[in-house]
This record gives sequence, C-alpha cells and structure tokens, in this order.
Amino acid sequence: MSRSCLAVIIAAGDSTRMKSSMSKVLHPIAGRPMIAHVMAAVASTGVTEAALVVGRDADGVAKAGAVEGVSVEAFLQAERRGTGHAVLTAKQAIVRGYDDILVAYGDVPLITSAPFAEAREKLAAGADVVVIGFHTDKPTGYGRLLIENGELIAIREEKDATEEERKVTWCNSGLMAINGRKALALLESITNQNVKGEYYLTDIVEIARAAGGKVVAVDAPETEVAGCNNRAELAMLERLWQERRRHELMISGVSMIAPETVFLSYDTQIGQDVLIEPNVVFGPGVRIDSGAVIHAFSHIEGAHVSGGATVGPFARLRPGADLAAGSKVGNFCEVKNARIDEGAKVNHLTYIGDAFVGAHANIGAGTITCNYDGVNKHETRIGANAFIGSNSSLVAPVSIGDGAYVASGSVITENVPADALALGRARQEMKPGRAKILRERALALKAARKMQK
Amino acid sequence: MSRSCLAVIIAAGDSTRMKSSMSKVLHPIAGRPMIAHVMAAVASTGVTEAALVVGRDADGVAKAGAVEGVSVEAFLQAERRGTGHAVLTAKQAIVRGYDDILVAYGDVPLITSAPFAEAREKLAAGADVVVIGFHTDKPTGYGRLLIENGELIAIREEKDATEEERKVTWCNSGLMAINGRKALALLESITNQNVKGEYYLTDIVEIARAAGGKVVAVDAPETEVAGCNNRAELAMLERLWQERRRHELMISGVSMIAPETVFLSYDTQIGQDVLIEPNVVFGPGVRIDSGAVIHAFSHIEGAHVSGGATVGPFARLRPGADLAAGSKVGNFCEVKNARIDEGAKVNHLTYIGDAFVGAHANIGAGTITCNYDGVNKHETRIGANAFIGSNSSLVAPVSIGDGAYVASGSVITENVPADALALGRARQEMKPGRAKILRERALALKAARKMQK
Amino acid sequence: MSRSCLAVIIAAGDSTRMKSSMSKVLHPIAGRPMIAHVMAAVASTGVTEAALVVGRDADGVAKAGAVEGVSVEAFLQAERRGTGHAVLTAKQAIVRGYDDILVAYGDVPLITSAPFAEAREKLAAGADVVVIGFHTDKPTGYGRLLIENGELIAIREEKDATEEERKVTWCNSGLMAINGRKALALLESITNQNVKGEYYLTDIVEIARAAGGKVVAVDAPETEVAGCNNRAELAMLERLWQERRRHELMISGVSMIAPETVFLSYDTQIGQDVLIEPNVVFGPGVRIDSGAVIHAFSHIEGAHVSGGATVGPFARLRPGADLAAGSKVGNFCEVKNARIDEGAKVNHLTYIGDAFVGAHANIGAGTITCNYDGVNKHETRIGANAFIGSNSSLVAPVSIGDGAYVASGSVITENVPADALALGRARQEMKPGRAKILRERALALKAARKMQK
Repeated sequence: MSRSCLAVIIAAGDSTRMKSSMSKVLHPIAGRPMIAHVMAAVASTGVTEAALVVGRDADGVAKAGAVEGVSVEAFLQAERRGTGHAVLTAKQAIVRGYDDILVAYGDVPLITSAPFAEAREKLAAGADVVVIGFHTDKPTGYGRLLIENGELIAIREEKDATEEERKVTWCNSGLMAINGRKALALLESITNQNVKGEYYLTDIVEIARAAGGKVVAVDAPETEVAGCNNRAELAMLERLWQERRRHELMISGVSMIAPETVFLSYDTQIGQDVLIEPNVVFGPGVRIDSGAVIHAFSHIEGAHVSGGATVGPFARLRPGADLAAGSKVGNFCEVKNARIDEGAKVNHLTYIGDAFVGAHANIGAGTITCNYDGVNKHETRIGANAFIGSNSSLVAPVSIGDGAYVASGSVITENVPADALALGRARQEMKPGRAKILRERALALKAARKMQK
Repeated sequence: MSRSCLAVIIAAGDSTRMKSSMSKVLHPIAGRPMIAHVMAAVASTGVTEAALVVGRDADGVAKAGAVEGVSVEAFLQAERRGTGHAVLTAKQAIVRGYDDILVAYGDVPLITSAPFAEAREKLAAGADVVVIGFHTDKPTGYGRLLIENGELIAIREEKDATEEERKVTWCNSGLMAINGRKALALLESITNQNVKGEYYLTDIVEIARAAGGKVVAVDAPETEVAGCNNRAELAMLERLWQERRRHELMISGVSMIAPETVFLSYDTQIGQDVLIEPNVVFGPGVRIDSGAVIHAFSHIEGAHVSGGATVGPFARLRPGADLAAGSKVGNFCEVKNARIDEGAKVNHLTYIGDAFVGAHANIGAGTITCNYDGVNKHETRIGANAFIGSNSSLVAPVSIGDGAYVASGSVITENVPADALALGRARQEMKPGRAKILRERALALKAARKMQK
Repeated sequence: MSRSCLAVIIAAGDSTRMKSSMSKVLHPIAGRPMIAHVMAAVASTGVTEAALVVGRDADGVAKAGAVEGVSVEAFLQAERRGTGHAVLTAKQAIVRGYDDILVAYGDVPLITSAPFAEAREKLAAGADVVVIGFHTDKPTGYGRLLIENGELIAIREEKDATEEERKVTWCNSGLMAINGRKALALLESITNQNVKGEYYLTDIVEIARAAGGKVVAVDAPETEVAGCNNRAELAMLERLWQERRRHELMISGVSMIAPETVFLSYDTQIGQDVLIEPNVVFGPGVRIDSGAVIHAFSHIEGAHVSGGATVGPFARLRPGADLAAGSKVGNFCEVKNARIDEGAKVNHLTYIGDAFVGAHANIGAGTITCNYDGVNKHETRIGANAFIGSNSSLVAPVSIGDGAYVASGSVITENVPADALALGRARQEMKPGRAKILRERALALKAARKMQK
C-alpha cells in the first residue's frame, strides 16, 4: 500500500485500577509491554509514523513502544477530556497530512494488523471513517453498530438504544481509521456538549455523515479488541494471547501435551516436530529447532536449542545457552552463556556458566563451573570427549583438554592436558568404630539440649 | 451487632463417597480443613459460640475447626436422621438462649460472612426464619424458593414442583438463620412423617409460617454454597476458592501472568506490585512484601520475602526463611529457617538451613550448610560481604567472618575470621595420559560384561 | 460373549495436517500411541483379532498397536477411496467369517469398550448394522441419526437435511458394528456413485434396510468419539483423556488439589488416600501405594512409591526407583534404579543412581553416587542407619556399612565398614587477611578489563 499512514495510539488512561506504580501500557503481555504489541500491529499494516498520546512518563512509554521501522513521537495529554480530545492532542502530527489515520489504544494489545489493513482498504475505496467492530454474546454496555445499506449510520450507546437496537451484537471496539485529509476538520467538529462534558471520538460518525461522507464498519475478533483496566483483565489478555500463539504453533506442527501449561514469549520460535511437555516457561529470545524435545518443568530464556537436543525435566537455560544437536541438559541443571556441543551431556545438578563444553563430553552430577570470583566472570573450556567426575569444581579461568578425565570431587584450578587424569581430592581415611562414638556424643548433646529447655 | 448468636455447624455426614480414612470436614481447602473455613466465616459475622454436630472423631473435628474468638462445643449425632434432627443434636446449646441461630455445614466451606450477616439483619428486623438461597442456571434437583410479597412461602422440592415452579432458578442452599428465642419450639415441631422417615430442617419454613411467623430468603453466590461429597467436588471447591482469592489479589495490585497456575493458602499475604510468574505454590504462613518478584516454579511455605527480593525460578523456601530487601534465592536452592540479609545472593544449587547469611554475601553454586549431624541441628553464620566458593560444605556449628573468602570445594569445620581466606581442599595432581588408560580399561570391562550376558 | 469378533481399525488417513514426520496414529495420548488406545478398547470388549488398515508404515503401526490378547494383521490401503473402501481393504480377514465386525478408527482414541459392547449386544439380538452415535450441542456438519420406531432409518448428511432434521442432535460418530455373516455382502454393495466418487461406509445403513435387515443406533459420550486431525486436536484429546482419568482417580479416593495440573500416563496406578499436590507429571510405569504423598513439582516415571513415603517438591524419580514405606525423596533429588529402604531420607540436591539405600539411612544434601565411569555403570550400597555427610561423592562400586558415617565433602572410593567413620577431605587451612587481598586483585582486574573495552 503506497498510501501514507499515521497511527495515533492513545495511552493516556489513568490506570488507577491497575494499582501500579507503572504506567498501564508498560505492563507486559508475553514478556513485552502492551504498548509494544500495539506498535507491532500497526507497524505490520505499513505504518511508519506513530503518535503516542500519553498521560505521564512520555519517554518511558515511547521507549517501551519502540519497534523497528516506526518513528514514534509522544504527546502529553495533560487532562483527560475524552477520546476525541486525546486524538487531537496529536494535532501537530495530524496536520502534517497523511492519507490514512489509524486510532489504536495502548491497552488493547491483542489487536493484529488484519482489521487495520481492512479498514485502510475501505479508506482507499472512499470511506471517510471506518469503525472497527466486534461481535459478542454479551453486548450489554457496548455501543452498538447500526448498519443501513452497508453503511454505519450510528454508534448507539446502551443508554440511548431502543429494545430492538439492544439486540444488535455488533459493537464498537473504539478502534478506527479516518481519512487523513479530512481528519483534522472532522476531529475539530467534535464538541463536548454532553452530560460529562467530554469530547467523544465516536461523534465523528455522525459528523462525517452530516458532511456527506461515507462511514463503514469492519470486523475484528472479540478477543483482539479486549482492553485492560485491572490486573485480572491483564491476566485474561495474557491468557488470550497465549492461547492464540499456542494454537498457531500446534497447527504448524509443534506438539504440546498440555498447551495450557506452556508459556511463550512474544518472540518464541519453535520448529516443527518439537515436543513440549507440560509446564514449560519460555522467556524472551528463545529459538528451538525442529526435532528438539523439551521435557516438563523447563525454564528457557535467551537460548538456542538445536534439533535432536533434549532439555529437562527441571532444566534452566539462561541467556547465551546454545545446545548443539544431540546434546542434553538434564534435571536441576542451569546453563548460562555456554555452548554445549554435539552430543555432550550435562545430566544432573550442574551449573555451567561462561563455558564451552566440547562434543560428547560428559559432565558428572554436581559439577560446578566456578565462573565468578566475587568480582569478575571467567571462562571454562572443556574439551571434546572429556569426562568430568561428579561433584567437581572447575575454577575458571581453566581449560580441560580433549579426552581428559577429572576425578570425582576434584577442585580443578590448573589446566588439564588432553587425555590426562586430574585429581584434586584428599585420600580416604578410615576410623573404625568412630561413627558409633560420634552418634553417642550427638545423642548426649540432644539430651542435654532437651534438659535445657 | 449486639445480638447474641450461636452457630450450629453440621459436620456429621457419612462421607463414604470421599473414600477416606479421615472425616470429610477435615479435608483441606487452601491448606485449611473445610470445617475451619466455615468457622472463620461464622466468626467474622460475630459468632462467638459454635455447636459442632459431628458423626465421629468429635475431638479431632472440634480441634481442626478452632478459630480465634469462637468457643466450640462438639455434639455427637449417633444416627443420621435428617438435618432437622442434626440441628437438634445441639439442643443443649440452643436451650441456653440466643438471639440468633445460624445453621451452617462443615462441607460447605466457601461460604463468607456476607449472607449470614444479611440473614441476621433480617432476624433483627423481625423474621423468624431466614433461608439462604442461590441463583443457578441448573436448578434441577434443588428445592426451589417460592416467594410471595417478599416472603418465602415454601421450599418446593423438585419432585413436588409444578412445571411453572421448576422454572424457578432461586434454590435452597440449606444454610439458614433462625430466631433463637423461637428456634427450639420450631425445631421440635419438625416431624418425620415422610417417605424416608427423616426430620427435614426445611419443614421449618411451613411450621414458622403456620405459627404466624415471617420467613424470608436472602441470596448467596452459587459458588459460596457449593458442597462437597467426593474428592472431585473437593477439587472443584479448591478451584473456586483459588479463583476467588487470586482475583482479589490481582484487583489489589498483584500481577499474575497465569493466575490459574498460582496456588495460594488460606493465609497467604501478598503486597501490591508483586509479580508472580507461572507455577508458584504457596504453603501456609507466607508473607510477600510489596515489590518482590516470585519467578516461575517456586515453592514457598512459612516464609517472608521482602520488597525488592527475588525468588526462583525453581526455588524452595521453607518455614523460617526470611529474605531481606534486594536478596536473591535462585534456581535449585532451598532455604530453611534462615535469614538472607540485604542484597545477599544464594543463586544456584544450594542448601541454606539454620543459618544467617549476612548482607551482600555471595553464596557459590553447590554450597551446603551441613546443619545436621544425624541427631542434632546446628547453626551456620556467614558474615556480611563474605564469599563462599562453589561446592563448599560449611559444617555447623560454624561461623564465617565478614568479608571472608572460602575457596571452592572447601569443607569448613572451623570458624573463619573476617577477611581471611579459608581453604579445605587437596592440591591438584595430574597423571598425564592416564585418562586414556582408564578409558581403555573401562571399555574392556564393558566388553567382558557383555560377554557374560 | 462367545460370539467371534473382528475389529477393523482404519488408520490410513493422510495426516498431513499433523505436520509430522510420523504417522498420525502413532502420536501419543497419555504416553501411549493413539492406535494402542483403540486396540485396548476393542480388546476389552472381547476382540481377539484385529485388522489394521494403514496408509504407510504398516509394521510400525501394527507394532505400536500391539496389545495383549489381540492378534493384529495390517492391510495397506494404497489409495484413499472412502471409508467403505477402507473397511474392504481388510476383506481377506472379513471373509474368514466372524459373528461380529467392529469398525473403529485409529485417530479416535478415547473410545471405551462400553459402546462396542452395547453394539455387539444389538448384533446378538438380531441387528445387522449398529451405528454408534453421540449427542452434541453443536451438530452442524455431522450426519444426523434419524430414528423411527427404534430403528435407524438413515444417516442424513448436513447438506441433504431438512430444517427439521438439522435440529436433530444425535449424530454419527463413524464407529459401527456389523453382522459378520452379512458384512461382506453389505460392504460390497456400497458404490461410489456420488459427487466425490468415494465409497461411503454410511451407505451401509440404507443397503441393510433395503435388504430387509434391522439397523439400530447406540450412544457414546461425545468425548469418546472425538477424532484428531491436527496437533491442537491432539492436545484436546489429551486433555479429555486426562480429565476422565483424573476424575476416576478422585472418585476412587485420590486427593488432587489441582487436578488440571496433574498429568497421568495410560498405566498410572494410584491408591486410595494418596495426596497429589499441584504440578505432578507421571510418566509410564508408575505405581503409588495407598497413603503416599506426592508434593508439588514432582516428575515420576517407572517408579514405585510405597504408602507413607513422600516425594518432592521438585523430585524426580526415574525408572527403577523404589521407595519403601516412610522413606522420603526431597527437593532437587533424582533417584534412578535404586531402592530407598524403610524410613531412609534423601532430602536435598542429591543423585542416587544404581544404588541401595538402607533403612533409616540419612543422605546429606549434595550427595552424589558416582555410578558412571564414562563407559560402565556401577553399584553403590549404603547400609541401614548410615549417615552420608553433605556434598559427598560415593564412587561406585562402593559399599558403606550399616551405621557408618561419611564426613561431609568426602570422596569415598573404598568400602566403609559398619560403624566406621570415613573421611576423604583435606584439612582446613587459613590465610588471615588474604580475602581482602584477593578482592583487591579482582577489583584491579575488573578495572583493567573495563579499560580494554
């Protein structure tokens, strides 16, 4: 579409019902602020300039809403005087002249580009105003869209509706598209001659029609236009988002045993024939390649898992974890900023941080890469086919050669050459009968403690 | 309300469908026996005396139902002869004379004080009997409340109802309030002249009206009056309880990404602007202060988390865990009976029990406080800014001074002075080429084992 | 039932919408391929011979569908020419002559034996064809079952139905039973004289009636006859299966606080009065005895848990784990191929593999049985009442005697006699003031690194 387009995004609500120290539109859905979801949706309909109408923290909101390809300008709406007033707060942008103007809301984050795209087609075909509606089983409280001969003749508010009109189930979402060449005149014709003394954007329908313009409505799924006024509604939007995305992934060939227990981020990428067991949480920045297996109770963030790799149960991959084909990170293991090379196994109770684990290396249970000295982080390098015995501590910076063997319980502070055996542990001593004596002493102490009470 | 009030709580059902060795009303909802929920509800409407009608284990039930401010007396109902008979089992209490008598059920645990309070107001305004009803989409099987001129004229059982009466969706919950001065006479007028030969409490409506008394109904939400006959229903009640409480918390300013995966206890306290990620379980006795973050897969019981502290993912806080501001307990860590002071980090694979961890101390991965000698528990004290190297064992009783440093893999059995370095590990030895030899031996063993099969 | 019976199971669909490299009927529900669920259902109505009609991977499907007591023969349907054609693909089996023939589908895995059993009774009572129907709120798109005088007179497809017929909510599931003596003649009378040119099995209703035969319908719950075309539907079937099985277990006396978070396998056995907390995953081969407690976040597979034992939270039991009465496996512990004897405790951060842990032994936090040398697995034996200090490594093969005591942080490579104390750790050394120096050095390094950037 070669028509120019400005998105006006209203993000100025008081959000007192959120009971939050943070602006409402900064609250996240799927790990991304609501405002960024809205920006991404308008961006994907070809919008390149957006005017954010904010009530406070203009910079913070503009920054959180930044998406590639859209230049954002924030406008402070000092007073809440209605949606019509809110849009006009961006007058300075509107006057620059655009073919199309979209009106979106920072707290309506599940909107996709489809309704906007359809609305812009209607503008291109000659409509002056396009209202985005939604069908619902429970229309009570919403403005009803009244259609005649294919045109929207009015948005009827609940209180003004006849009994017949109340049966209409197509309702006003608040989202809209306006002919950018006529927008300023239309918006400036909205008055506040009403009970609340507010400027209602919905008045634009009558104004445009009175001026001989064409007003139509397009449809969006109810779930896409749901808004957020408190944290229960925020959780509901999160749920709708998750359900939508899980469904997309399953249809594309991802198996989820219990999709309702899998939590995705806005940018989670999962290939075909990946199996995801119950209770998996994906933070931002995750890519799972085709054919990987993610077992139950896994927590994955900023990580890449190759096909044929398996993760979990009870595994945590942190940013920079990169699992090669056939590798395995098992229970109670944490991997951070580390490559686990082809076929390497990190099976149990292990922390691998700032490290490289070579192909087919075996990391014993309880192994720790001691990457932190209290101030700095250091690297550990483990060679291919190396074997690290259980409960070992690898004090970084340190390097274990290919095929080397670290004995269980060793503390390794010096590099180990390839094929060498390294030990760092004391010889076993035995004190016959001593356990019995210790037990008797402990029991005596227990008795003494008891008497003191 | 200065009117005296007795609650008669019927907890005498056979509960055979629970298939349990325990009395039904002792089964918990949100970590508290059902009977205690009911007691708490009546207590908060101002009840100070309760008569528990039980079928077995009178002491156990009375004890489990104990709540502050209510004195409880248990009455054994030897035979099941109907709800009217059950209430009269507490005759000895009723005859003492109260203004109001409430009838509740030990297996209807989600009831709140609101319907009881409204019922008591009706008594105070002159009603003799107040029935607590509920509206439902599926009235089939319930007694319908028939109202005329604002009075309840009958509770019509399904089988006796006309087609028109069956359309009534206001139903009898079984809960009731009775004028305490007339209660005994009314209750003793109930007969068992019916097919089953039982004494039905619902007959009191007709009896009171026949005596010229006024009977009215008040309303309770359907979810509040749901009862429990088997463990599937117990799970449903738990779910309704959880949904109600999660909603309250979200409305009060707690963020839950997936509320349906957060499990609260009856006494869980969570402050505003706390973020709770998916899959968190709260046992009893937890207090989370405003601004804390609880990551996914955390299990918290008997613990206090200060604002700015973060927990999890995969963390377990046990009773006595006390996390100060800015502290952190990370993945695969368990903390029990221990203070984690301001800004201290317990990041990975660690057990801290019976301990004090000083401000800004850093506890390395795999650290264990060895608090148990097989008989007694001992304390570990770690000073401010101390650094405990990974995989260390701190054998209690032991004290690590401020700013001290414990080398990785050390076993510490003696106190470490402030700013000292303590090591308890062997020197690293190296055997060049030995890994290869060990590997060959192991492969030879494998081959030998294979041949034996 | 002494009547002979052949089940024809159609598993030949293209399954392109599954987007899978695997045949659709091999995708699992509750840890078992869909085809095996169907086989188990027909097996439990007394079927001893089954004909699998497959489109590809005949051997794989036949193998996956194998259940005890049923001999399976696979038939390759080279072309998809309709359900009638699919059944006739098994002609070679049908001609052998059976009293009853059942038609089932490999992608309808929740079916139970009940509808089949009822259908076979109808055959025994003289029906030639028995269609299995289901009642639904949303009949649109399904063939409606038209009944007159107790007989099924037609299966009316949506497109051919009158307005009145569309109101019928009893629909065709596709599942069927056919008089085995007449089946071949009936099936061979089906033609492909229709728009799509396919052989529709449903035509058999008219054909049988035209021949003077009796056709009736029996009912199945809607959930039992749901099919699977993509992975979203696969997840829905999994959910329905889980809900059904959880409900059965709760009714039988198992407590689940949040049943929707408990994931069972097809063969999970759980006794009465077992408590299962939220978020528990059962893999195949698990048996939990009456009175055990499974805490939240547990993952159990191929394991046996005795009454009075407790598992979790955050525990993983792998195949061969066998927990005796009163034993405990706690947080961040993994047990594999090991007996944990009466009253033994494995409380925290431990890996027990290929081991025996004696009665009342106490395994300290961070203990690892080093069972793997990179090539072979070895055994660890821990005696009754032994005490293994924290962070110990037991290098198998090794044996710890009854009542022996292993000091914290020890590496044990040699057997420890009963009642002996074994130590394998270095003496603690102290370097006064050295921590401060190390800290200063580290800070200097940090500053230097910073400058390099």
